[in-house]
Amino acid sequence: MSKRIEYWFDFVSPYAYLTTQVIEQLAKKYDREVDWHPMLLGVVFKHTNSTPLTMRPPVMADYHKHDMERSARFAGLPFVLPEPFPINTQNTARVCLWLKEAAPAQVGEFVRNVTRTYFSEPAALNDIAWLGQQVKAMGLDGEAAMAACENPYYKDLLKSACEEAVSKGIFGAPWLIVDGEAFWGNDRLPQLEKWLDSGGF
Amino acid sequence: MSKRIEYWFDFVSPYAYLTTQVIEQLAKKYDREVDWHPMLLGVVFKHTNSTPLTMRPPVMADYHKHDMERSARFAGLPFVLPEPFPINTQNTARVCLWLKEAAPAQVGEFVRNVTRTYFSEPAALNDIAWLGQQVKAMGLDGEAAMAACENPYYKDLLKSACEEAVSKGIFGAPWLIVDGEAFWGNDRLPQLEKWLDSGGF
Repeated sequence: MSKRIEYWFDFVSPYAYLTTQVIEQLAKKYDREVDWHPMLLGVVFKHTNSTPLTMRPPVMADYHKHDMERSARFAGLPFVLPEPFPINTQNTARVCLWLKEAAPAQVGEFVRNVTRTYFSEPAALNDIAWLGQQVKAMGLDGEAAMAACENPYYKDLLKSACEEAVSKGIFGAPWLIVDGEAFWGNDRLPQLEKWLDSGGF
Repeated sequence: MSKRIEYWFDFVSPYAYLTTQVIEQLAKKYDREVDWHPMLLGVVFKHTNSTPLTMRPPVMADYHKHDMERSARFAGLPFVLPEPFPINTQNTARVCLWLKEAAPAQVGEFVRNVTRTYFSEPAALNDIAWLGQQVKAMGLDGEAAMAACENPYYKDLLKSACEEAVSKGIFGAPWLIVDGEAFWGNDRLPQLEKWLDSGGF
């Protein structure tokens, strides 16, 4: 089994969406596998009194909205900031955790698909029925995915994931860990790639 | 006269130091001139209740210190976080404003030199005598530079610069403006370069 890239993200993070679209391809280039770790930024943010970028003082929020759009264009990806934003993503994260057990080879496909849809067009990202449709469209068991949203096992799994994120010192997304080295932000992918290429610098 | 890149910075900003070392070279590549705008982050931060990265909760401050070091290595530049950090840089900024009038062709050299020294070895960055020595070593009038630090004219000029930064919506450094488009952070240089190369995207 190849070595891993731990990838921590929230489905609602615009910059994580950009990383999500390319991380598996980047990992493959360096013979790595992506270990997908959905979490909830709302939980993580509490530990550093942090806030979503779009809810900061207007001059900052305006810059960040503009930067999200420009960063997406820079990456050649579509981007429309959803309304309302941000939203809770606990059901989406639970479906992702279910997929990690039910169809581990398709986790990347799921995360790429739902984030690309969420940041391209009106989409009910965290709606249980919508999630079921997304999973069904992938040729998987949509009913089982919907059931996972209300299953205490996956609720606990997500709670533990958020606690693990905090214990690892994670305070934002996208957050990537390679051989114990942490990289925060889509704009750190060039450094991450240099790390993968050189074995550390 | 070529078109300009407005470059807003504080001498104490580690990420601005990284930008400072390369911005004039980048500007020349696209037939631009750098318009150096020293400012004080302490003043700018008040308008968004922001704080220096190294003074945030420990888990964030630790990550940022590590990221500063790694980002410098990634750029091939030396970096040692000075102690104490951050410090006020009003005298350094005033000397810079004096240089913009007294020796405009050497402003870039001054900013590169003093930041590289400050982030490489123990250096009295904001000390008036130290600043006089730096200017003298450049073949310029060190006494006049020292006098500028106490001159109400340069004090007012710096105050106005900080007000102008706030009025432009600047809330951090390095901050670059090209044809009205704002880029915040050394990690946005790839986007800035694409903008210069393509005329906007």
